Amino acid sequence: MQVTRSHRSFEGLTQFWEHESRCTRSRMRFATFVPAGEVRGALIWLSGRGRDSNETNFITKSGAQRYLAEFGMMVICPDTSPRDLDLPGVRDEEIFGEGASYYVNATTPGYRDHYRMYDYVNEEIYGLLHNHFGVKKIAIAGYSMGGHGALTIGLKHAFKYTSVSAFAPLANPTKNVRAQRAFRGYFGEDRELWETHDATCLIYDAHRHPNPILIDQGLADEFLETGLLTRNFESACQKLKQPLEIHYREGYDHSYFFVATFIESHVRHHAKFL
Amino acid sequence: MQVTRSHRSFEGLTQFWEHESRCTRSRMRFATFVPAGEVRGALIWLSGRGRDSNETNFITKSGAQRYLAEFGMMVICPDTSPRDLDLPGVRDEEIFGEGASYYVNATTPGYRDHYRMYDYVNEEIYGLLHNHFGVKKIAIAGYSMGGHGALTIGLKHAFKYTSVSAFAPLANPTKNVRAQRAFRGYFGEDRELWETHDATCLIYDAHRHPNPILIDQGLADEFLETGLLTRNFESACQKLKQPLEIHYREGYDHSYFFVATFIESHVRHHAKFL
Repeated sequence: MQVTRSHRSFEGLTQFWEHESRCTRSRMRFATFVPAGEVRGALIWLSGRGRDSNETNFITKSGAQRYLAEFGMMVICPDTSPRDLDLPGVRDEEIFGEGASYYVNATTPGYRDHYRMYDYVNEEIYGLLHNHFGVKKIAIAGYSMGGHGALTIGLKHAFKYTSVSAFAPLANPTKNVRAQRAFRGYFGEDRELWETHDATCLIYDAHRHPNPILIDQGLADEFLETGLLTRNFESACQKLKQPLEIHYREGYDHSYFFVATFIESHVRHHAKFL
Repeated sequence: MQVTRSHRSFEGLTQFWEHESRCTRSRMRFATFVPAGEVRGALIWLSGRGRDSNETNFITKSGAQRYLAEFGMMVICPDTSPRDLDLPGVRDEEIFGEGASYYVNATTPGYRDHYRMYDYVNEEIYGLLHNHFGVKKIAIAGYSMGGHGALTIGLKHAFKYTSVSAFAPLANPTKNVRAQRAFRGYFGEDRELWETHDATCLIYDAHRHPNPILIDQGLADEFLETGLLTRNFESACQKLKQPLEIHYREGYDHSYFFVATFIESHVRHHAKFL
């Protein structure tokens, strides 16, 4: 494991790393911010999809370091997929393959050998936090496709994560045409498997997190009604009594400016449960 | 003048613009953040040089919106040079031409027709703030090459700018080999002209700003001793009694993580003089 860049920020350190992943059997990158002083907990941040979405997004654009430093939390931001693999269709489009792992363990030929981002996050990154960084209290959060990753991983392993939050999550991907295309690529036609990676289905399937899930959703988000389907998740939580704190934000869109505006409240939320 | 992107952030608006500039006789881009509520003043932010340095840097990476919103200030971030012009050597290197205007009015053939970034900032952008945005109190700041721009323009037109600040400025470019190459490209061998675009020379030439100039400088900045020469500017200010508040920051380098860490104190500084 190797640090490729290191920058002092807010008295702590923002760093960029590379390592050989045993889960993805490939070289992976991630970014961290570790505050000065006692580290009370860690946040795993999962980024959205797209060619420009990788381990650098959150750490350069969110402005989170200030709040993480204030509350004594570190963050670790994995890349959004393995890179530079020679797999069929891996670089054909932005909704599948490179930059768009959906944080699942793929089962289709070729992909199943490397696209194991679910295990990568939930075991390998989680393990690094425990063993390398010495942090025991771990929260999970993300944005868009990363919000989907945070909700699904957080709900399926509630005992491992102190709290879960998301910005504009892909909250019901089995009902989203583009996510369906990606799921078909990662899982084939096994719809039952699809549903185990859908936050709304997980709630209906009796998965729960004991602490309130925090979601921020922009009302000017162009993907809200047909892509994210945040209201489906909200409705499932209401019906099945999953505690949920959801804020619909007038005028806010699907950009990092939205994340930057409300990241303080998410850091405060996670700090409460450390 | 046309808005190309608009994002709500911190209850205000982050926007990206394009317009035909009369100074550079080319299409120019800039970014703005305008807070909700009363706008008490504006900050002109000048970015550093490099292929990736443009109107988007500050507004996506600095986290300044939070503090600008708090103090009722807008910011306007012009691009670092004209773009897509067919001039000799304009895209040959990162220290001259595209992305590296040094915020001067060039006098050499070809460049003198378009590379008039000094007037662009000090007249056209300044005029837009007055006339389009209706803001009368205007401060100027910048980073690296943009710190050079802020110091030189602010010192030469002290009556126009309520306050001046810089992060890691190119503070004595006539003594810096790379800046000399750029100045030769923009001005030829007229060294007297060079010195009118050198903040340290301007202090020795009796230019003053009535309010303290604020500078933050990282001590782990790889360009400090041979490129930026911040201490030469500090020494000039001490000798000639220009009020200066300078902070050398242990461990901080020449990255935007440094700017993000201390931008709050710069916004507070400028807000004091509105």
